Amino acid sequence: MDTGQAPHITLIAVGTIGLSFAALHLTHLPSPSHLTIYDTRPDLESYVYENLPKFYTAAQTPPDLSKLHITNNLQTAVRSASIIQESGPENLEIKQNLWRDVEAHAPKHALLWSSTSGIPASKQSALMADKSRLLVVHPYNPPHIMPLLELVPSPQTSPSVIERTQEFWTQRGRVPIHIKKEITGFVSNRLAFALLREAIHLVDCGVVSVAELDAIVESSMGPRWAVAGPFKSYHAGGGAGGLEGFFKNVGGTVQACWEDGGNVNVGDGSGWEERVFREAKEAYGFVDTKQRDDATRRVLEAVSEEKGKRKEPR
Amino acid sequence: MDTGQAPHITLIAVGTIGLSFAALHLTHLPSPSHLTIYDTRPDLESYVYENLPKFYTAAQTPPDLSKLHITNNLQTAVRSASIIQESGPENLEIKQNLWRDVEAHAPKHALLWSSTSGIPASKQSALMADKSRLLVVHPYNPPHIMPLLELVPSPQTSPSVIERTQEFWTQRGRVPIHIKKEITGFVSNRLAFALLREAIHLVDCGVVSVAELDAIVESSMGPRWAVAGPFKSYHAGGGAGGLEGFFKNVGGTVQACWEDGGNVNVGDGSGWEERVFREAKEAYGFVDTKQRDDATRRVLEAVSEEKGKRKEPR
Repeated sequence: MDTGQAPHITLIAVGTIGLSFAALHLTHLPSPSHLTIYDTRPDLESYVYENLPKFYTAAQTPPDLSKLHITNNLQTAVRSASIIQESGPENLEIKQNLWRDVEAHAPKHALLWSSTSGIPASKQSALMADKSRLLVVHPYNPPHIMPLLELVPSPQTSPSVIERTQEFWTQRGRVPIHIKKEITGFVSNRLAFALLREAIHLVDCGVVSVAELDAIVESSMGPRWAVAGPFKSYHAGGGAGGLEGFFKNVGGTVQACWEDGGNVNVGDGSGWEERVFREAKEAYGFVDTKQRDDATRRVLEAVSEEKGKRKEPR
Repeated sequence: MDTGQAPHITLIAVGTIGLSFAALHLTHLPSPSHLTIYDTRPDLESYVYENLPKFYTAAQTPPDLSKLHITNNLQTAVRSASIIQESGPENLEIKQNLWRDVEAHAPKHALLWSSTSGIPASKQSALMADKSRLLVVHPYNPPHIMPLLELVPSPQTSPSVIERTQEFWTQRGRVPIHIKKEITGFVSNRLAFALLREAIHLVDCGVVSVAELDAIVESSMGPRWAVAGPFKSYHAGGGAGGLEGFFKNVGGTVQACWEDGGNVNVGDGSGWEERVFREAKEAYGFVDTKQRDDATRRVLEAVSEEKGKRKEPR
């Protein structure tokens, strides 16, 4: 069974994230692979055929749906799979029972992935006989657009499972990153939430509005970090001295900002929620995520083309 | 004097930021406006003609340099200016003396802008007779690429100075944001530094490397925030419940990440600097900022085109 080249992929539970993964896999599925979707909902077939097209742009070639199998039977779904990926409810007991059942019916070498954003593999694998097979593969939503996948093993996950998973996603042009510890919230959410905390503080203090704060990010670090992450950016900002030079020049300002930063908390009774939620509602109403995702796709294409240019001889 | 339509702009001190502003202004300068560059360096003329072309891409029409005046004489530089913008050293005494001298020679209605990243207008204006004229106009580097300008008035800055400045930049397709308080580090740097702090903590704990952390940001919140800032993104993430719904669903995780976050400090003796600086150096060496800026320009063009599409009738 060659996981990387012609995998048989089974998705378990297809809410928005599961369907987004389905769209992604179908786009990259080589013959003779197939994609199986398993869910307990009784209307599964009509639900999938109705909602899957929402994940493609008009410009894309529609995927070959003859490769798609749909079933309400877990045993049928997993018995010939080489990759089994769950995107079910964020409920520890459900996931523990699921993996016990999957393990009973799946081929021994199948990769077992969870899309969880918070329940570590070390907890999910509690009822499994072989805990070395399970790996958290956490996407940045929606996965059919965003390249990042955080691979978060438990201490029991085998190195070969991590390697095979990295190889799978790299071959599909995605960015799988091995997170070395089962840390709360993994990495991308922790980073984003750290900035969000300061953003809430600044709105709460009346420095800027919700919409102004977003405009600031969209016209500064957003586009910059799409091209060069924070370390690379500040390393460049330090000139010949690199990141060390940057801290030598402006480390005092950095520290002053950190010390002055506002550590707001959820439900701390200070009333920031009322203001921030109201401003967001007034500024945005209902966000058209399709437009947002189309624009994000364009941004990623632009970055990718520019990166391609760099590799050419000059 | 119509500041918005046909301004005579004078730039004071042309390091990298000043030259970047010069490139930006020359691209948008209508006839019969002119741009004057003042600096004390004796080789000013050759320095400007040699370095200015670095701020244009091969694809751009070179600016009309007949509109460019270069002088070592401050009085000559400012006496017919409608906008005077300084990007000099981050030194309070130098800036205070500069504005006193500028005020003595500039037309009464000229807008006075400082590109400082940290010295508030209320301190810079100490020696001025009319403190209502001075406004901090803080760019996100480099200003000829990045659309953001943080307008940070002192309590004395007049509302009309803020309005005229907003109008000037909006007409040129930039994003001027009025920051309502003279807060340490203004807004964009505070936000970026908050994320940087958590980033340093995660590298310091061995969760990811410097290069992996950058790859995470470049393939997740970077491109996302280029299109929709954090509040808008999470407001969309909350579905019909908006930002409030988002916090209802995952507020517990957000708070858990905040509580678990690592509040590293500059020079705290924990040794994070050695590791982080070394990894940045090993990963990036010398960063080609021209490639980075070209790619950022492409990203901004992509976002802008997608925004244009949204405004069309559907």
